[in-house]
Amino acid sequence: MAQKPSIPKGTRDFGPQEMAERNYIFDTIRDVFRRHGYAQIETPSMEQLSTLLGKYGDEGDKLLYRILDSGDPFTRVDFGQYRLEDGSMNAKALSLQLCEKGLRYDLTVPFARFVVQHQNEIAFPFKRFQIQPVWRADRPQKGRYREFYQCDVDVIGSRSQLCELELIQIVDEVFSKLDVRVLVKVNNRKVLTGLAEICGFPDQVVDITVAIDKLDKIGLEAVEAEMREKGLSDQAVEVIRPVLLLSGTTAEKLATMRALMNGGSASGRVSETGLRGLDELEELFGFVAGAGIGTQVEIDLSLARGLNYYTGAIFEVKALDWQIGSICGGGRYDNLTGIFGLPDMSGVGVSFGADRIFDVLKGLEKFPEALASSTRLLFANMGAQEAGYVLPVASALRRAGVSVEIYPDAVKLKKQFDYADRKSIPFLSICGADEVAAGTVQIKNLSSGDQRSFAAGDLAGMIAFLG
Amino acid sequence: MAQKPSIPKGTRDFGPQEMAERNYIFDTIRDVFRRHGYAQIETPSMEQLSTLLGKYGDEGDKLLYRILDSGDPFTRVDFGQYRLEDGSMNAKALSLQLCEKGLRYDLTVPFARFVVQHQNEIAFPFKRFQIQPVWRADRPQKGRYREFYQCDVDVIGSRSQLCELELIQIVDEVFSKLDVRVLVKVNNRKVLTGLAEICGFPDQVVDITVAIDKLDKIGLEAVEAEMREKGLSDQAVEVIRPVLLLSGTTAEKLATMRALMNGGSASGRVSETGLRGLDELEELFGFVAGAGIGTQVEIDLSLARGLNYYTGAIFEVKALDWQIGSICGGGRYDNLTGIFGLPDMSGVGVSFGADRIFDVLKGLEKFPEALASSTRLLFANMGAQEAGYVLPVASALRRAGVSVEIYPDAVKLKKQFDYADRKSIPFLSICGADEVAAGTVQIKNLSSGDQRSFAAGDLAGMIAFLG
Repeated sequence: MAQKPSIPKGTRDFGPQEMAERNYIFDTIRDVFRRHGYAQIETPSMEQLSTLLGKYGDEGDKLLYRILDSGDPFTRVDFGQYRLEDGSMNAKALSLQLCEKGLRYDLTVPFARFVVQHQNEIAFPFKRFQIQPVWRADRPQKGRYREFYQCDVDVIGSRSQLCELELIQIVDEVFSKLDVRVLVKVNNRKVLTGLAEICGFPDQVVDITVAIDKLDKIGLEAVEAEMREKGLSDQAVEVIRPVLLLSGTTAEKLATMRALMNGGSASGRVSETGLRGLDELEELFGFVAGAGIGTQVEIDLSLARGLNYYTGAIFEVKALDWQIGSICGGGRYDNLTGIFGLPDMSGVGVSFGADRIFDVLKGLEKFPEALASSTRLLFANMGAQEAGYVLPVASALRRAGVSVEIYPDAVKLKKQFDYADRKSIPFLSICGADEVAAGTVQIKNLSSGDQRSFAAGDLAGMIAFLG
Repeated sequence: MAQKPSIPKGTRDFGPQEMAERNYIFDTIRDVFRRHGYAQIETPSMEQLSTLLGKYGDEGDKLLYRILDSGDPFTRVDFGQYRLEDGSMNAKALSLQLCEKGLRYDLTVPFARFVVQHQNEIAFPFKRFQIQPVWRADRPQKGRYREFYQCDVDVIGSRSQLCELELIQIVDEVFSKLDVRVLVKVNNRKVLTGLAEICGFPDQVVDITVAIDKLDKIGLEAVEAEMREKGLSDQAVEVIRPVLLLSGTTAEKLATMRALMNGGSASGRVSETGLRGLDELEELFGFVAGAGIGTQVEIDLSLARGLNYYTGAIFEVKALDWQIGSICGGGRYDNLTGIFGLPDMSGVGVSFGADRIFDVLKGLEKFPEALASSTRLLFANMGAQEAGYVLPVASALRRAGVSVEIYPDAVKLKKQFDYADRKSIPFLSICGADEVAAGTVQIKNLSSGDQRSFAAGDLAGMIAFLG
């Protein structure tokens, strides 16, 4: 009985064309990572739920895919015990009884777990990259999938700003290879902390940053109104105003901020943390200037990405010529592995959003042509004897590195031409009885129509013609 | 509170060294696939359970990992209904209520589903390869994992023996690139069917093949005893005897078998199916002889791999110099997609066992040296100013394709040397105040001790020295 086949909502098949395009992105990224000395690792798709739970907030816990324990996990469970007063079941508690494993939700927590578990085998500073799928039971929508690849690069075990620089270099090189113009925005969590300190509301760094983040959309007055609503005093708002009006070159911005943090604000307060953040930014931008980076890199103090998580630099990358959210982002985290028992490991990393980068390359038509077909030459099949004749020629060409196919069936030439056309194979060879008798191989360039005949042993001639 | 981190039983982390070695295998295989015009696809890790169930037998159904439906799948279930008389729960029925998705168990069923679902987008014959992990809730043991990669290559939509040939060529090329001597064994399901037919027990093809398969281990008499035990008559055993004694060249084996199938056996019966199988083998071995294949390829009529599944050729590949089970295998299946509503699609494919191939390469010490470190040159960090001096040199080398690192922290040189050593980085550059003043770059070959000084702009010289 035939089933109509389908795949789960929010998941995707990738056919040859899309795979070739995705591989083009991954290969480009991987190549840049390697050129900077980052080594690839892979972690299991399934982690212990205890490794994952509590790491992504309550909302994240709900989005974890749980794997039903194999065998019979049911008989040992007293289901009545999980019935709540309203008659529904306590899904959270019950699923813990039935499932001890979950699917990877991101690559960061498994990386932290990996570093702690293998700390004695690792040469620190550890420069690693990881390209693997993650799973989230999110509601599927345009551009949001339940299975998608993440592409993370991190260095852990060094506090040097050279690490931050290197990530910016990597972003620069990746997008320059992909021929996509981007803007790299940089912020520093310590500066945001410092701002909250000098305005006298050190606990409200999130409120302050969320408000600042809306400046472009709602304007200065609305931002200040929102801050007052959150309980900030007039003086605090006055302290923050110069930050909202910040402009000029990077050096000018840094100088303005340094003056503010150093007692020059309306409150007169000094923030050591803020000054340290500015030192970091200044050192980083000094490196950026000296490293010959073609990409535009700018300070953006409203950048608040992953605020509860990062402790130093914060990065975000946007495409300049295509409207889409951030296509890459990350930052520095000072205590990622502490939760697994290894304190004081500072790391910094960014994650490339493969799906969005894919959309940008599609939108800007930046994929190289003829990615899909690796095949350069198709030998038409004119019968068993003729196929036998071309077999050693095809083998020799392959040994020389050329991708070659022999059409498997001796069907009508029209059908074989169609196959070459659908696979975008640029060269076709038709060797019939005449060629076999003469010991020659005919090759035709299907786009130019140019056709040539070679002695069957003239590999060099064929390879030159195939280009 | 620190958790002691661990991963689920039967799963693995792959660190830099192992990843590099695994990538070496995958890259080699992928490269050969592409050179034959096979295109890569990927399917989702999760499939509908309805797609997977019933495809791998009862045992397989039990080994499927099931994903708990997200949200609350419990409240809608009347658990009492699933209580069996012995007090245990009906795990099979209940899990279907709680889980609609399962993890991929192999790549073949998802491939069949893919072909049916995308049949209008596909150019047939469809030559595809797929390298992705699969999951099985099997009991973990040495060499058996719950998550492992499969590496499948198939062509679907052609009955030509050129497809079988191409798979043998691919095996030949892969293992010759990996420098592993292998033996390819070939059988044909139709010949086995024919044997069962001429001996008069057409329904006992499995019993007969299982018995023949033991010839090497238990000897002729024991095999014949087993066949009698399974109900075969004396005459049937007599019909099969010449097959057990089969020897000589491929041509001689084929001739002996052809005579038997053509009425020359003790029963005098003729098997059309058997003769068709021999025609296929003869055509295939004709192609093999003409294609210049270096690997030993031989007929083995005891090869019974996946008997319920294959309808034509059956393949198995063994390493000649390392004792381990089959490292690659496959065959032809005439109706793989029928179950999803697309009949008469004949396909043939093989699957490379990445984990076993890994073990063989380890055992025979066939991995190339220095796979792990992609980094060619480490610039020691002598301080912020010196780091700034080498930054543009490092960038220029990377642009020229050289993998380069700058050690991020200005720590003791001993520590930086250790880092180079642990990452097997072959060249080290120490640029201190003298080099900065002179505008030069010192590079040392850490294994030969050879050291040279270059002008900071002399990229060509450095690249030549780095090799």
